[in-house]
Amino acid sequence: MTAKIIGEKLAEIPWEDKPIGHEFPVWRHSENPIIKRNPVKGISRIFNSAVAPFEDKFVGVFRAETINGRPHLTIGWSEDAVQWDIQAESINFEDEDGKPFHPKYAYDPRLVKVEDTYYIIWCTDFYGAAIGLAETKDFKRFVRLENPFLPFNRNGVLFPRKVNGNYMMLSRPSDSGHTPFGDIFLSESPDLKYWGKHRHVMSKGGHGWWQNVKIGGGPAPIETTEGWLVFYHGVTGTCNGYVYSMGVAVLDIDQPSKVKYRSLNLVLTPEMDYETTGFVDNVIFPCATLHCAESGKIAIYYGSADTCVGMAYTTVEEIVQYAKDTHESVGDDQELGKI
Amino acid sequence: MTAKIIGEKLAEIPWEDKPIGHEFPVWRHSENPIIKRNPVKGISRIFNSAVAPFEDKFVGVFRAETINGRPHLTIGWSEDAVQWDIQAESINFEDEDGKPFHPKYAYDPRLVKVEDTYYIIWCTDFYGAAIGLAETKDFKRFVRLENPFLPFNRNGVLFPRKVNGNYMMLSRPSDSGHTPFGDIFLSESPDLKYWGKHRHVMSKGGHGWWQNVKIGGGPAPIETTEGWLVFYHGVTGTCNGYVYSMGVAVLDIDQPSKVKYRSLNLVLTPEMDYETTGFVDNVIFPCATLHCAESGKIAIYYGSADTCVGMAYTTVEEIVQYAKDTHESVGDDQELGKI
Repeated sequence: MTAKIIGEKLAEIPWEDKPIGHEFPVWRHSENPIIKRNPVKGISRIFNSAVAPFEDKFVGVFRAETINGRPHLTIGWSEDAVQWDIQAESINFEDEDGKPFHPKYAYDPRLVKVEDTYYIIWCTDFYGAAIGLAETKDFKRFVRLENPFLPFNRNGVLFPRKVNGNYMMLSRPSDSGHTPFGDIFLSESPDLKYWGKHRHVMSKGGHGWWQNVKIGGGPAPIETTEGWLVFYHGVTGTCNGYVYSMGVAVLDIDQPSKVKYRSLNLVLTPEMDYETTGFVDNVIFPCATLHCAESGKIAIYYGSADTCVGMAYTTVEEIVQYAKDTHESVGDDQELGKI
Repeated sequence: MTAKIIGEKLAEIPWEDKPIGHEFPVWRHSENPIIKRNPVKGISRIFNSAVAPFEDKFVGVFRAETINGRPHLTIGWSEDAVQWDIQAESINFEDEDGKPFHPKYAYDPRLVKVEDTYYIIWCTDFYGAAIGLAETKDFKRFVRLENPFLPFNRNGVLFPRKVNGNYMMLSRPSDSGHTPFGDIFLSESPDLKYWGKHRHVMSKGGHGWWQNVKIGGGPAPIETTEGWLVFYHGVTGTCNGYVYSMGVAVLDIDQPSKVKYRSLNLVLTPEMDYETTGFVDNVIFPCATLHCAESGKIAIYYGSADTCVGMAYTTVEEIVQYAKDTHESVGDDQELGKI
C-alpha cells in the first residue's frame, strides 16, 4: 500500500523535484543553506528551528544565538517558507498568570498546531536541561505552560493531534551534559499540565553505527495511512567528536510507542560544506517539516553544523517505502506495552 | 514554638531515651543493627528498607539482595518493630489488568499510607533507573501503578496526604549511573497516573561538604506544626568513594517546594563498624520513620553500609529546633515558585 499523508493540503509548500540519478530518498534544496551566518543584527547563527503554515503565510520559531553565544528563541515570517524575515528580539513569554517569563536560555524549538493552538516546545533551563512548553494562537501573545517533565531531558516533540484522547509527546531523557546515551520515550497528558503513561519507543544502537550513541526526536510526527512518520536524529561518536545524521521511522497510529518500520540506514548525513563545517562540525538536526496531504510532498528543515538552516525534500510514498524496505528493529523497539 | 507532630498516636513505637551526655539530636538504637547479614535463607543482605504500622502490628517492605546480588522487594512483619520476620520470596506484584508484574530489579523502597491505601515507591528498571509505584490495602495483593516519571530518577518519596488536593512526590532526577550530581524536586498528581507542576526543592552543596555531591529524599515526610519534617541523605565524595550521611529539613506545609529550615550539619554519619564497613562502606541511608503524634517520638530506620538495617531516635521538638538553629539555605533553596 502506498502511504498517504492524512491532513491538510499545502499547495504553497516549497519544492524541488528529485535530481535525476539521485540514489537516496531525501534530497537537498539546491540553494542551501536557506539561512546563513549572521542573518540578523545581533544574531550570529540561526539553526535547529521550526516552521509552520500560518494564515496565508509561514511562521517560524528560530534558535538564535546572540553574538554572546547564548541561545534564545525568536519569531520569523515568510511568504514562500524559503526566504525568512527574522526578528532580532527574543520571544516575550508570559506565564499563566500574565507575568513576564524569560528563560535563561532556550534552544532547539519545535512548533506544532494541535486543534486551534500552536505549541512551542524547546530545551529550557530547569536546574539543568529540561523541556519547556508554551502556547500561542496568534504569534503575538505566548503563554508559557508548566514544564512537562523533570530534568534532565531534551528533544520534546508534541504530536499534532490527541491520540486516544490524550496529548502525546516524545522526549529523550538523559542527563545534565552531552553524554553518550539516550533513547526516545513517549508520554501522555489529558491536559498538558500532568503527564504520565510513559513508554519506551526507540533505542539507540542497531547494526548501523550512525545512531549508536544517542537518538532524539525531530519534527512533529506526520500522520499517514501507515502510521506516524517521524524523522529523528541519530548520533555516532568519533575520536574527534559526534556526528549527527537524520533517520526515519513509522510509529503505530494508535499506539505510537510501537515502532512499525525503522530504517537501518540514515537518510541524510553531513556531506556538504555547510553541514560538515561550522560552529559544531558534522551536524544535521531536523526540527520541522512542511507537508501536503494532497501531493505527498514533504519539506524538511534542519539545523546544519549549529550554524545555519538547510532544507531537504522527500515524498511520503518514497520515505515510508524506504523505512519499510530497510527496516531494522533496534534494541527494545516494538516491545509494545512494555513499561 | 515547639513543634508537634500532626497525626496519629503510636504508643507501641520502639523507643530508647537519649543517652546522658549525648551531644547530638539523633541517637542510635543500642542493639544495632536490628537486621544483620544473611537474615533469611537465600538473602545475603537487607538494608535501605521501609516500615509502617499496620493493624495491631508492624509491616515492612525490605530491600533484599539475593545471594546472586540482585535486589528485590520482600515483606516482613513485626510485633515490636525491632525483631522482624521477613519472607524469603519477592513481592508478587500484578499490574492494573491483573497480570503478574516482576520488575527486573527493585531497590530502596519507601512505604507510606495515604488515606486508606499503602503505597510502595522504589527504584525500578525502566530502561535505566526510574521510580516504581504500587499500592496495597492488605499486603496480600500488590497492584503496580504507572511509573510516575521518565527515567532517570531515584529516591521517590510520596507524602502521607494530599496537599492542595494533589498527591505530592519528592524525587531526585539524575542519570543512568551513580554520577556526582542530583537535587531534590517535587511533583504533583491529581490521580497518581499523571504528574506535573514540577518544582525544585533542595540543592546539593552549601557550606558543609557532607552533601556537596548529591542529595536524595528519605522517609515519607512527617507532618508537623512547623511544616513537613524530612530526613534525607547527603553524599560527599572522597578519593576512596562516596560517604552517605543523614540530614534534616522542614518544608512549608502548603508549598512543600519551599524549604523553611535546613540543617547546615548532618544529623547522623557513618561512625559505627556496621556503618563504616560492609558491602558498601560508609553509608547511612534513611528510608522510613515511625512516629507518635502524642509523644513526639520518632524512630528512624536506615540502611547501613548496604548490608544491614539500623535504627536511630529523635523527637520532633529536638530535631525541628536543631534544623532551625543550624539553618542554612543552600543553592536555590527557598526560591518559592521558581520553575
